[in-house]
Formats: sequence, C-alpha cells, structure tokens
Amino acid sequence: MTDSNRQILLTPGPLTTSDTVREAMLRDWGSRDGAFIAMTARVREALAAIAGGTGTHVCVPVQGSGTFAVEATLGTLLPPGYGKLLVLVNGAYGRRMVRMCEYLRRPCAVYETAENAPPDPAHLAALLAADAAISHVAVVQCETTSGILNPVAEIAAVVRAAGRRLIVDAMSGFGALPLDLAAVRCEAVIASANKCLEGAPGIGFAIIDRTALAAAAGNAHSLSLDLNDQWAALEKTGQWRFTPPTHVLAALDRALEEHAAEGGTAGRGARYAANCRVLVEGLRGLGFETFLPDALQAPVIVTVRMPADPVFDFKRLYDLLNARGIVIYPGAVTEAATFRVGCIGRLGASDMRRALAGIEAALAEMGVDRAGLRPVPA
Amino acid sequence: MTDSNRQILLTPGPLTTSDTVREAMLRDWGSRDGAFIAMTARVREALAAIAGGTGTHVCVPVQGSGTFAVEATLGTLLPPGYGKLLVLVNGAYGRRMVRMCEYLRRPCAVYETAENAPPDPAHLAALLAADAAISHVAVVQCETTSGILNPVAEIAAVVRAAGRRLIVDAMSGFGALPLDLAAVRCEAVIASANKCLEGAPGIGFAIIDRTALAAAAGNAHSLSLDLNDQWAALEKTGQWRFTPPTHVLAALDRALEEHAAEGGTAGRGARYAANCRVLVEGLRGLGFETFLPDALQAPVIVTVRMPADPVFDFKRLYDLLNARGIVIYPGAVTEAATFRVGCIGRLGASDMRRALAGIEAALAEMGVDRAGLRPVPA
Repeated sequence: MTDSNRQILLTPGPLTTSDTVREAMLRDWGSRDGAFIAMTARVREALAAIAGGTGTHVCVPVQGSGTFAVEATLGTLLPPGYGKLLVLVNGAYGRRMVRMCEYLRRPCAVYETAENAPPDPAHLAALLAADAAISHVAVVQCETTSGILNPVAEIAAVVRAAGRRLIVDAMSGFGALPLDLAAVRCEAVIASANKCLEGAPGIGFAIIDRTALAAAAGNAHSLSLDLNDQWAALEKTGQWRFTPPTHVLAALDRALEEHAAEGGTAGRGARYAANCRVLVEGLRGLGFETFLPDALQAPVIVTVRMPADPVFDFKRLYDLLNARGIVIYPGAVTEAATFRVGCIGRLGASDMRRALAGIEAALAEMGVDRAGLRPVPA
Repeated sequence: MTDSNRQILLTPGPLTTSDTVREAMLRDWGSRDGAFIAMTARVREALAAIAGGTGTHVCVPVQGSGTFAVEATLGTLLPPGYGKLLVLVNGAYGRRMVRMCEYLRRPCAVYETAENAPPDPAHLAALLAADAAISHVAVVQCETTSGILNPVAEIAAVVRAAGRRLIVDAMSGFGALPLDLAAVRCEAVIASANKCLEGAPGIGFAIIDRTALAAAAGNAHSLSLDLNDQWAALEKTGQWRFTPPTHVLAALDRALEEHAAEGGTAGRGARYAANCRVLVEGLRGLGFETFLPDALQAPVIVTVRMPADPVFDFKRLYDLLNARGIVIYPGAVTEAATFRVGCIGRLGASDMRRALAGIEAALAEMGVDRAGLRPVPA
C-alpha cells in the first residue's frame, strides 16, 4: 500500500487487490486434479467459518458474478410450488432480486423504503403477520447503491419470530461487516470473491443452511445455477460440476490467507472503518456533503451529493482522477444527483488521502471554490 | 514451451496458458472504466471475426464456464412458447444440452449415435422432415467425451435446407478447428476463453445472428443468463450488466493477440494437429490403442483404450505423471474403459514427447510390457 503511483480503484468491486493475490493467478491448475480439489475444499471451509456457519451451513461456490450467486440462491431455495419472497428494497440490489423473481416466476412482495432509510423491523413484522404466503425474506446487508447499512440482526430476529426464512445478500460487506450465523439466524448468506475478501472477480458463493439445501433438490430453474446440484457434486467428488475459474479460485485462496492474517472480519472491518472516516472527514473538509448520515453509513462506499456549482463537472473530475491512477464511481441513487467513492480493497488511509488530494487538485483545476460545493437542492 | 520442468496440463481445459497470458492478470481493472470498456469491445470484435461472423453476428460474453454460455444461448434463443430443440448426442456435452432443456422446460428431441459415430446428415434430414415442431438443432463440434469431430458443415447444410436453425457448441475447438459463419450457416456458435483460445477460465461467449438475438427479448429463463439483455446493455453502455471477471478478460485479450500472431485458427490448428500426430503415433508406438479412428479424431484430446494387463493402474499412471508435472485426464466415454490425453493449450511437439516419455517411464515402473497394452476386450 506504499506505491503512491499505483492505480487504485475506489469502487464497490472489482477493487484493488494485493500484488500477492494477483500473483497467485500465475499458475495453471487442472480443475479435476487433487491439488485443486484440496484448494476448493479449503476455500469452502474458510468461507463458512468467516460466516460462523461451520457445522450448520455449507458454502456452495458458483462461477460468475455475485448476481449469479444471488439468482442461484433464490432459484434453489424458493420452492416453485409455494415459495413467496418478500424483498426489502432500498436500492438497486434489492430491486434486482425483485427482477429475478419475475424471471423465475416466483411470487414476490416488496417492502420498499427510501434509499437513505433502512427498513423498519416493526413494519416488517406487521407485513409478515398479514401475509401467511410469504415463506422467505431477502435483505441486502450493505446497499452499495447508497452505501447504507441495513439492520440485518434486527430483521433476522423478526423473521425468525414469524417462522419465516431469511436470505441475506451480504455481497459488499462479507468479511468486513460482522455477520455471525451462530447469532443471527439466516437460511443463506450470499457474497462474492471480489469485494471485502479482496479477491479477483469470477466467483460468487452462498453459505446455506445444510438442511434447507438438502431439501432443495428439483427447485432450480437453471442447471448452471442449481446450487443443490453443485453441492451434491462437491460432496461426492470434491469437484465443481463445470469448469471453475481456476486462477480466480487460487487468488481467493490467497486472499483468504491474507484476510486471516489481518485479523479476519474484525481486522479488515477496522481498516475499512478507518478508511471511511478519513474519506468522509476529508470530503466534508473540502466542502462536500455525504448522502447518508454517519449512523447509516457502512464503511464500504460513500455517496457524495453532486455540488450545485455549474463549474463542477463529474466527468471531468473522473478523468482528472483517472489520469492520476485513481478510479471513482458514478452515483446510483435515484433520489439525488450523486457520485461515489469506495473505501474497500487493498487500500489504507494513505490511499484515501491520496484520493482526497486528487479531488482537491481537480476542484482547483475546474475552478470550483468551496462555497460552490454545497449540494444541488433536492 | 522450452522449460522441460514446468507443469503441463494435457486436459481439455482449463489448460496450459502462456506466461504472458497469465501475466496479463497482474493488473486490476475498474469494470466500468473506459479502458475496460474498450477491452470488452476489442475482445467481442475479435471473437466475432474469428468465427467469420463480423457484420452478421454479434459476440455476447457471459460470466462463468462454457456450460453457462450454452445454457444462456439455449434459454435466450428457444422461444418458450413454441421452440423445440433437436439435440445430436454422441457424448456428455450433447447429453448436457438435453438436461438443460429439462430445466428450461423447452421441448426437446434427441438423435443419439454411438460415442465413436458422428450423426448421419441424411438421417438428420429425415428427422427434420418428420417433425415440423423442431425449430432448432444443436450439435457439439468436437465432443471431448471421446475427442470426436462431428461434421458441422454437412449438418448445417441439412438444417438450412430444412428451414431450421442451428446452434453449435464449438467449445473445445473454437479458434483451432475451422468454422466460418460466412460459409456455414449457424444461428449461434458457443465457446469459452479457456480452450483453444488459450485464455484463463471464467468467461463463455456466444456468437449469435444479430436478427435472431434482437428477436429474443423476453425468452430467457434467467436474468444472469439472458443474452438478449446482456447484449442490450453492451450495445448501450459498452459495459457488462454484472461484474465481469476483469482479470480473466484481460487474459483473453492478451490470448487473442497471441492467437492472431500465431496465424489465427489456421496457425493454431496446425500446431495442435502436429501435437495430435506426435501423441497418437507415440501412444501407438508404446502399444496403446486409440478409441477413435484417425478420420474422426479432432486434434483436441485423444481417448486411449485402457490396457487389459492387470498390472496397469490408471490412478498410478496419473500420479506418476503428476509427480513429473504432467496432468492427464480420466476417460469419459461410457462404451469402453479409457483415459484421455489432451493436445491443446500452450504446448508443442516437445511437450507431447515429454508426456510420452513420462508414460513410458510409468509403464516401466508399473511393470507393464508392451504386449500387455492391448485394450480390454469390449
């Protein structure tokens, strides 16, 4: 994290990985060879352990992006005959699960809140009491649309009390935000290699209650995305059913070593929290306003309100930063004009300061003064 | 290809890649950044050009293995209302397409031949004449189950004459076996990054007739595997809908440069053909018998009949070769006891000779004499 010229990705993933993680991709692996089978088992066990699911849950990896893993989990766990999913929506990833249900032709209900408002557990309880058909609830732990942290533990308690099952899209926080399956009852937790685990993209995974997964044979709408079938093959042969991204798995294997060496979820989460503090304070110091109040801000990605000053040009900011090797992200919330700056990946406080210096220089080059950085009125 | 100690994968893929292809994975890419968008466009154009589909067809990549691309193509192109697929089966990959149709709930018919027998175009014509409901035909160009080369051009002519549409799983031959869409009419040709293109695994793709793809909106059974939707996003923004395996795409981009530098499909096919000749002649010289006659053998992977000598032990052969850095493959045909040795990947004749020397040494260590290498009687 010391080379001040290296490219850094301040994005929600794919993100900046360590040199050693990328170097783990320099070897070819036979996907049905014993050494690769051992690597697959090691990675699956490590991921289940990070979630606190050892013994109760199993990790099933799937080729593709995190979205593939989310769709695979919904398709595998929702019984086509009677399953109904209630999706808690406050951003694009919640909306995407609703869209998946349309493809899957599974009944779906939506509890939507504003993009800067977490769902209310009491209202969720009322919704569950009112609709006995709802079998499952899905929530996104950290919606990177805004960067909001949703109250998964409180939601899990309500879902459990109502005798329903919870599916958590923990994509952008897994390995950095606490989520302990021993304490928080979930049927499935879904994430991917290339977010807070700091691996390369190409593998998603779900950590699924063993009993529920065993009961899910025949549910899936897709061969490729059938996690029951994938699991059965892994248990029987240790092998992925279809060619896995071998180099990406090797990178994840290495990334998990580095995650453990950093002190696991607590250690990684602490680094990201420090990054986020430096970033938010620095942005505010420059005159920017963040979209979320601090209490709702996950230490993953910060949404910044677009300044009103017409001299400010996001495309130009993006290009000026890019020329310095710094990649930021466009906004995604629908309720306000914004852009985003991530704080996850193999980055430290010095990288955050480098980004802030780059932003400050870009503002000067555009001729924006600090008074002009107050946001566009809503 | 000179280091005689490096690990070599004599498998149907993932296979041995060049150092330079793997080194292309040493950089992180922002998946929504302009440089990555340009790389995606470059790769898509190069793949369509290799197939001879520039102008008529478009290349749509999809995250995951080749199987994901096959399922995505079937799900996208077969209309759920009236599509019916006739699958030409002579191995595991044909059978897998039948299984996909079951998941997709699309009507399916099967024309199955023995694992060492290509489909007969005249019989195919009769089947099409007899069943007007068949809208599409699917065939596997090279079935790596046995290594057989199926007669795609003849099949395409029959399908075209019958007014039906052809889908070719060209997974294991794309970029080495000739297949020119300007001459051979196909609605879609499907392959992946990690076979004869010598990239890393993690990306599949289909090269699809533009008109057919445009007409396919709303067909797909899966959001992740909807190639019409993936294509629409690529055309609109240049971006993949969901996080792509950025490092794997960078490896493919580099692999395509090396493919062109080798003289494209003709050059690569010539190297593999030479590899295959050295391998087959060498195996026969040792006393082995190949499963296929030479006329049906694609220069991709060679199926070898298991010797009758009880002293011969495949597991031991595998392990002895593995200790020398040589990875071979178990058999897959159901009609005979076999094992397989591949000849694709960043390998030359010297690698084939190294493998043959390893096999010869292993035979000596097992105490198999040449007379004992005649195969198990069928």
